[in-house]
Amino acid sequence: MTYCVGLLLNDGIVCLSDTRTNAGLDNISTYRKMFTFTEPGERVIVIMTAGSLSVTQTTLARLDEAASDLEATPATSILMAPTILQVAEIVGRTLAETSQEVANRMGANATSASASLILAGQRKDGDMRMFLIYPEGNFIEATADTPYLQIGEHKYGKPILDRVVTPQTNLADAKKAVLLSMDSTLRSNLSVGMPLDMVVIEKDALEIAEQRRIEAQDPAFAAMSRSWSDALREAFTKIEV
Amino acid sequence: MTYCVGLLLNDGIVCLSDTRTNAGLDNISTYRKMFTFTEPGERVIVIMTAGSLSVTQTTLARLDEAASDLEATPATSILMAPTILQVAEIVGRTLAETSQEVANRMGANATSASASLILAGQRKDGDMRMFLIYPEGNFIEATADTPYLQIGEHKYGKPILDRVVTPQTNLADAKKAVLLSMDSTLRSNLSVGMPLDMVVIEKDALEIAEQRRIEAQDPAFAAMSRSWSDALREAFTKIEV
Repeated sequence: MTYCVGLLLNDGIVCLSDTRTNAGLDNISTYRKMFTFTEPGERVIVIMTAGSLSVTQTTLARLDEAASDLEATPATSILMAPTILQVAEIVGRTLAETSQEVANRMGANATSASASLILAGQRKDGDMRMFLIYPEGNFIEATADTPYLQIGEHKYGKPILDRVVTPQTNLADAKKAVLLSMDSTLRSNLSVGMPLDMVVIEKDALEIAEQRRIEAQDPAFAAMSRSWSDALREAFTKIEV
Repeated sequence: MTYCVGLLLNDGIVCLSDTRTNAGLDNISTYRKMFTFTEPGERVIVIMTAGSLSVTQTTLARLDEAASDLEATPATSILMAPTILQVAEIVGRTLAETSQEVANRMGANATSASASLILAGQRKDGDMRMFLIYPEGNFIEATADTPYLQIGEHKYGKPILDRVVTPQTNLADAKKAVLLSMDSTLRSNLSVGMPLDMVVIEKDALEIAEQRRIEAQDPAFAAMSRSWSDALREAFTKIEV
């Protein structure tokens, strides 16, 4: 499985994904699930993926190919589309077509040929936007009421987001929130695994402010994870029933 | 859906269940999902249920009827079975037969005719034991390595249990842990709802030490929920990334 989470805040966008994929429990690998497309000053786009690796890889490869095609048009290239909504439409269409092709090949096993994506970004003169794109290519959008979107194993890490994230959350707290949300998921579900990929985009910067890979032995992440455990245990001790 | 959790600790057993059932999102009701059977000094048994209400109600009704039958035997009555393991076998058999009957009637829709149970208890001169009984009637048992079992919407409330519960956890902390685990689930998933049912059994007491219903407006639960939110937010503020 997978866990990817994106926050759409007044100050910017924060995305975090894990990298574990598995074909059965005995075949575990590491694959990047976060992809960025930027043209500084013009547009910044992040895509995170969950689901069948053959579907997500082919979808991303086709988006890439369509964008670098010499005959690319605003209707086919996510780097030329005039708005993030239109990027979402191109991505949704490509995902749905790819899923359908893979499903046709798989016949009765087609239930496992699906994938979901989170798309976030900003186009010059446009708002920051974030979409969750379903396997069929339709999508929903993050709003002020629900400023985060998740794909994959979303349940373990949802309580902390429900408690601390609002559109007013600053970017430092937002990074903390997604990392703690991931930490809860990593602890409780083996199908989500390190390393992690994180991207931070500041509002109207139209470029990536921070992009980093957090390795399994990352001392800061380990320290944060330990402090959070300690803080939770301490809070637990103090609560009166 | 449902969330039920049971802890099997050195000092005793703590069980907590919600009461929400739904047939579609527009048809929500309250049904007890926790059932106790005691013969003080002889045996104490708790059963919690998740899944198809028609399956769980019929299963419990049949267990009741079999136990009060004038011709009941240790092989048919959970109140006469000599060990908790044999109680698990009677319960598992009854559950599997009931599911099969309902599934046969439902034909192609049979996937929704399944249910899982948690069975916990102690028989005089026996150990406390706790089982998770699957729809097919087979079961697994809680152990010192994994001293808790969950059925229903288990993911939201798992991180807190993974962090604080060990077999050495005392009963007061255990009550707190299951209530906080439920609190996280209630916040993040509408299909789990108040009121709650809680049972505490002390080791070797062979009776129920505490059994109570926690209503939606319960001031102590609301205060605990608020303190936990505050404590989490405070802990969140202190964590360094």
